[in-house]
Amino acid sequence: MMKPYQHLLDTEFLSKEEMQGLLNRARFFEEHHEENAKTFQNRFVANLFFEPSTRTRFSFEVAEKRLGLNILNFSEEVSSTTKGETMYDTVKLLSSIGVEAVVMRHRNEKCIAELAKQDTGCTLINAGAGSWAHPTQALLDLYTIWQQFGEVSGLRVAIIGDLKHSRVVRSNIWALQKFGAEVVVSGPPMMRDAEIEKHVRYVEFEEAIRSSDVVMLLRVQLERHEQSLFEGAEAYLQSYGMTQSHFDQMQPHAILMHPAPMNRGVEIADEVVEHPRSKIFTQMHNGVWIRMAVLERAYLERGGH
Amino acid sequence: MMKPYQHLLDTEFLSKEEMQGLLNRARFFEEHHEENAKTFQNRFVANLFFEPSTRTRFSFEVAEKRLGLNILNFSEEVSSTTKGETMYDTVKLLSSIGVEAVVMRHRNEKCIAELAKQDTGCTLINAGAGSWAHPTQALLDLYTIWQQFGEVSGLRVAIIGDLKHSRVVRSNIWALQKFGAEVVVSGPPMMRDAEIEKHVRYVEFEEAIRSSDVVMLLRVQLERHEQSLFEGAEAYLQSYGMTQSHFDQMQPHAILMHPAPMNRGVEIADEVVEHPRSKIFTQMHNGVWIRMAVLERAYLERGGH
Amino acid sequence: MMKPYQHLLDTEFLSKEEMQGLLNRARFFEEHHEENAKTFQNRFVANLFFEPSTRTRFSFEVAEKRLGLNILNFSEEVSSTTKGETMYDTVKLLSSIGVEAVVMRHRNEKCIAELAKQDTGCTLINAGAGSWAHPTQALLDLYTIWQQFGEVSGLRVAIIGDLKHSRVVRSNIWALQKFGAEVVVSGPPMMRDAEIEKHVRYVEFEEAIRSSDVVMLLRVQLERHEQSLFEGAEAYLQSYGMTQSHFDQMQPHAILMHPAPMNRGVEIADEVVEHPRSKIFTQMHNGVWIRMAVLERAYLERGGH
Repeated sequence: MMKPYQHLLDTEFLSKEEMQGLLNRARFFEEHHEENAKTFQNRFVANLFFEPSTRTRFSFEVAEKRLGLNILNFSEEVSSTTKGETMYDTVKLLSSIGVEAVVMRHRNEKCIAELAKQDTGCTLINAGAGSWAHPTQALLDLYTIWQQFGEVSGLRVAIIGDLKHSRVVRSNIWALQKFGAEVVVSGPPMMRDAEIEKHVRYVEFEEAIRSSDVVMLLRVQLERHEQSLFEGAEAYLQSYGMTQSHFDQMQPHAILMHPAPMNRGVEIADEVVEHPRSKIFTQMHNGVWIRMAVLERAYLERGGH
Repeated sequence: MMKPYQHLLDTEFLSKEEMQGLLNRARFFEEHHEENAKTFQNRFVANLFFEPSTRTRFSFEVAEKRLGLNILNFSEEVSSTTKGETMYDTVKLLSSIGVEAVVMRHRNEKCIAELAKQDTGCTLINAGAGSWAHPTQALLDLYTIWQQFGEVSGLRVAIIGDLKHSRVVRSNIWALQKFGAEVVVSGPPMMRDAEIEKHVRYVEFEEAIRSSDVVMLLRVQLERHEQSLFEGAEAYLQSYGMTQSHFDQMQPHAILMHPAPMNRGVEIADEVVEHPRSKIFTQMHNGVWIRMAVLERAYLERGGH
Repeated sequence: MMKPYQHLLDTEFLSKEEMQGLLNRARFFEEHHEENAKTFQNRFVANLFFEPSTRTRFSFEVAEKRLGLNILNFSEEVSSTTKGETMYDTVKLLSSIGVEAVVMRHRNEKCIAELAKQDTGCTLINAGAGSWAHPTQALLDLYTIWQQFGEVSGLRVAIIGDLKHSRVVRSNIWALQKFGAEVVVSGPPMMRDAEIEKHVRYVEFEEAIRSSDVVMLLRVQLERHEQSLFEGAEAYLQSYGMTQSHFDQMQPHAILMHPAPMNRGVEIADEVVEHPRSKIFTQMHNGVWIRMAVLERAYLERGGH
């Protein structure tokens, strides 16, 4: 029986100390990014994306290449899963041919957690699991806030929007709360989530944007909701989206975040996307350093080659 | 505001001197191809192909690998554009994660030109834009002609076939005319294009093949035309295609070109595809050196790392 | 006219000496896998998969990366074959841009053999051709048996299951017989293949599993058969599948093999998949070394760079 590797399933299972270690390494990678150590040149990683993704897949791929890893890319369309193979067998195969870590995105929120109970030989890194968890997104958000304010403890972070369908909310709550931030949520009544509100307080939209140090918008998946609710995008934007006038109500030091991809004109207006206090593209930038830290942890923990 | 990078949108926007510089570098890369400098090992490029392509994508990929670039490959099927993100946001994301140049093919001929007006942070390289432009194809054609004849000035080049639907014609006209070649066009009446004939003379097919130094065939997209016109492929081949008998009417020094993929038995007969004076596979070969030159220009212009 | 390269079409066309050479090199690669020679860093390979595949494509890709090759990946969905280009032109294009070897999988069993008659400039490596041949699978099976028993001569190997639709059977028969093994086949009457039984003896299932040193299961493609035959998977498993009770009838030294992907609960029961005498994941592991040997042979034979 092989040793159970330290999978990255969610921030829920990381201590504050482990996360702080990842933040420190991310900062190291950001500061030394022109050096390109390519530490892991003889080692293999597989990216298994069972759901379309551009930014997360590319962000991992840049991180992997900066670490010198050899990459196998897999998307559902061109795979043998059409032949009815189990996920266990697929990942065990990857282990057999030399892959050590698997970065996985899957629609089914239980897929990666189930797999982690078995001994595939690979370290699993969650790149988005249904609407359950997206830990590297939460870690890069945490890094962005830490970078901006110097510390996270004592900050108020408002997460606003489609709470029901977001894979980002929960992962962010666990991470931010462990660092001593106060998390509140807001958004339209129909998008509220009772389970989430066991852990954080719901506040009205105006209070959320006026009182917070960080306003984190969520992507609205309008197609999953009743149109009658909002009469479309414009109504959402005016009530719960970040217009210029809503932005002006934020505290002068407060920053705006969004995990992307954005629906411009729905949860965010064009004119605030690239405001100096909008950190949306900074978040994407920071994703590379966080993913390098997460991958480095996986490979170092497995021992050298 | 970042500096506006020198995008490669079309040969229309390149001076003769700039193109000559690219030809010189292409020749350098061809002559030194066994050395494999891998100059840009720490830098990233993305290939965004929103339309299927084999040869252009692979040609760029070989060029990129020879330069040592790290590559992100993107095809429409596996992307987040299905989530309604704007092209600007997609490319800005790529810039945020470290990509410096984007090689883009798109059905919409205005897409890349519109994008070039915005500040994405990436240098854009056009790998085929609708039926508007395909500048690296024109440059590799120019290189092939220059290589064959020693100079381009004074040559007559006949471009024959589906003028209406080709992305290659215009890019070739601008490039060849700036180098002092005389360009004429020919083909069936229904495939003529009034806009193109403002710049070059239309001649009858027999005159085109008999009088030219270079005969450049275009791919026929029969599916876009009325069948009644030709009664199919064979009729086209006999009237406007390059049969052996038409080939024999060319001047003894004249060469045959085709941007590929070829429709054998439509615009070209099997027996002439690999004639010593057919440069079709030489064109493909030369595409690698031209694309290395184009990429090198993009990265050098951005400054070192 | 270029020299005809030593394609790898099937084990049928390899001598025992050639195969022994490949086994020796595979063992060398396995023993030295932490060194990562990256011998062929300036050279290019293309993987052309016209049929979905995970394990074979990834296994080749790991082998290629371990050898330092530059890789172009091609799958039918994103290619120009939709534009009606011939396979010859596609591969000739690849040769023109610097590709030296093409790893090809195709549904049409004649495709690669037809292509090998033409001078494309590329060395062809068969990664699965319809139900005709899959030589690298046979070679990795041979390697696994050789590794297990020290020699192959005198062993009895039973190949059991869907003989009619397997691309693996024939390639294995030629390889094993040349090494002096006795091959027998078994399986349900409706899956028998008269052509195969010209070369090897059919035996009853019980005899096959009781008398053999190696039991090699084939994947059942139930969807291609009449359901009435078996009343589904469970009936197949009990009659011709490897249950624990069937496993117990095997000789104490006998090993179990399967080319994968497996249909758990059809041709194999969960509880025997990872039995110590099941070599299924070892086969996958060995695939990397065999494919390195096959690729090295192709590149060395073409001469140095």
